[in-house]
Order: sequence, then C-alpha cells, then structure tokens
Amino acid sequence: MDINVVNALAYEDFVKLFGNVVEKCPLISAAIWSYRPFKDLADIEARISEFIHSLPDSGKEGILRCHPDLAGRDLQSGTLTPESQEEQSQAGMTTLDSAEIVHMYRLNSEYKERFGFPFVICARLNNKADIVRQLSERLKNRRTAELECAIEEVKKICSLRLHSIVLSDIQTKL
Amino acid sequence: MDINVVNALAYEDFVKLFGNVVEKCPLISAAIWSYRPFKDLADIEARISEFIHSLPDSGKEGILRCHPDLAGRDLQSGTLTPESQEEQSQAGMTTLDSAEIVHMYRLNSEYKERFGFPFVICARLNNKADIVRQLSERLKNRRTAELECAIEEVKKICSLRLHSIVLSDIQTKL
Repeated sequence: MDINVVNALAYEDFVKLFGNVVEKCPLISAAIWSYRPFKDLADIEARISEFIHSLPDSGKEGILRCHPDLAGRDLQSGTLTPESQEEQSQAGMTTLDSAEIVHMYRLNSEYKERFGFPFVICARLNNKADIVRQLSERLKNRRTAELECAIEEVKKICSLRLHSIVLSDIQTKL
Repeated sequence: MDINVVNALAYEDFVKLFGNVVEKCPLISAAIWSYRPFKDLADIEARISEFIHSLPDSGKEGILRCHPDLAGRDLQSGTLTPESQEEQSQAGMTTLDSAEIVHMYRLNSEYKERFGFPFVICARLNNKADIVRQLSERLKNRRTAELECAIEEVKKICSLRLHSIVLSDIQTKL
C-alpha cells in the first residue's frame, strides 16, 4: 500500500474501503478520516483504537452488539458480512455438526444473558477448539474485565481486516 | 407503542428495529440499549442525543459522513437505505430534472469540499426549494457552526424515524 493513495481518498471512498474494519461500524472509519494525513497503516490503526477508547462504556458495548454470534443465526441464514463469513469459515464455524452448533448456541446464549453483548473473538487467530475453550473461560470473567477483553479482540479483528485490505489492490475495491 | 414491549427486546431485536434511526450507525442504538429500561420514546431520543453529544467532533463528523448526498449517487444507483429513499422521495429529490440534478451535484460538491462531510438536512421537513436554499445558505457558515447545525438535523431525522417505527406495528418488523 502507498499511504499517499489512502490519504488522497475522498471520505466516500475511504468509508467504502475501510467502513467494515470494525464490524458494521462505518461511523468509526468515517470519524478517523478527520485525522488525515496518516503516516502509515499503524497510524490508522492507532486512530481507530484511540477513537474506540474515547467512547463511554455504552459505546464499547454498542460496538460489540454490532457483531454476529459465532456459528449463530446470521451464519445459518447467510446474512453475515463478507468479512465475518470468511473469518468464521477459517475458524471452522461453518462446518460444525449439529451437536456442535447446539453447544455453541447454548454457550453464546449464556454469555449474552450474562453480559448483554455477544462473545467476540478474533476468529482468524483461533481454531474451533480454542474458541469453545475461551468462550467457556471468559464466561467466568467479571463484566468490566470482559468488556475490556472483548474490545481487545475487536482491535485484533480490525488490525487483520486493515492489513487484508491494504495488501489487496485498493483500486479494484472502489 | 407500549414502552414495555421495547424494554423487553433483546439487543439483537432492538438493533434490528432501531439500528438505522441514525443513518448507517447501528452502533448508536446498540449503545443506548445499555440504558434500558426507557421511560418512554422521548427517553430513547434523549439517550441518543446525549450519546451523539458525548462524541468528539471527529465522531460527529463520522455520523454525517455515513449519510448519502441528497439527489446523489446512491439515489441514482438505487443504493439508498429504505429510510433515506422515502425521505428523499418525499422531498422531491427523486423527480428532479437533469438541470436540477446537476445543480444539486454542484452544490453538494462545493459543500463537501468546504466541510469534509455531506450536507445533511431533515428532508421530511423541507421541500425541494427549501433544500436548495438552505444548502446555499449553510455553505456560508463557519465550520464549527455548520457541524452543530448538521447534527441538529441528524437529531430531527432520528426523531421522525423513531416516531415512524413506534407508530407502526413493531411485531411485523421483527
């Protein structure tokens, strides 16, 4: 990526390109466009992180609530975003057997009941077994610690999505 | 609307129902779900307003950048959200002749060049002539005043969208 190409983008194209680096939150990339010119990709990532941390807890929870369940109803009904579809697929969530789907459904429900937001984990960095284990583990967290943990996962997902975009040919995406 | 019905909604259903009261910013309704139970519709509206005002200026600009141009490329290409489509249609933006489309395009471009976000106005409260007049007028504003003015329009749009949702049958939308 040439950062100058990114810095020259009109906000419409910037949001079209980076609008889903935080799942269903184009507001965030649209906001950090204000901080152009960016030095490099790490600078974009830092601005997104800074923006997320500037939000009240309700806003951080709001970001999490824009995420789909893992192996949940959006996956079953084919309504995941392309990015989520790819990530859940890589983590083996699209090839669960029916017992595994029921198990994930129960764990997800318990988690949402407890915290009021869905379980978010960077699926690209974890396989099926890791995901089930961490979901069970994180269910035991206190709410404040879990919110922080989940937001760190959002940032990992965002980082990988950003890298994936800039490694591809930007022009073909606009 | 029975506010108890709204207060009983899981966040997924709440976001599905109210996710676009601020254009393409489901993060906002997902965030204010944290403040249930709501007293009434005015309470929901107040929470949204409070959340928007808690954002840094970049965040307010981000909200505006999630809005389409009036009579712009999303309208021409049929990619407006259903809410925007209806609002732009009511304001006469879908039946402009080619000279009017070019005129709007020029004014929108000048506005975006000047402010770095699109011209946002509550289309349901204005007709074609009002919109063109206000766009020309607001182009003369200072940036800080214009950001404030545009966010007030976002809140008017949000209020009308909220009322429209709760006046309809919630159950049919879920």
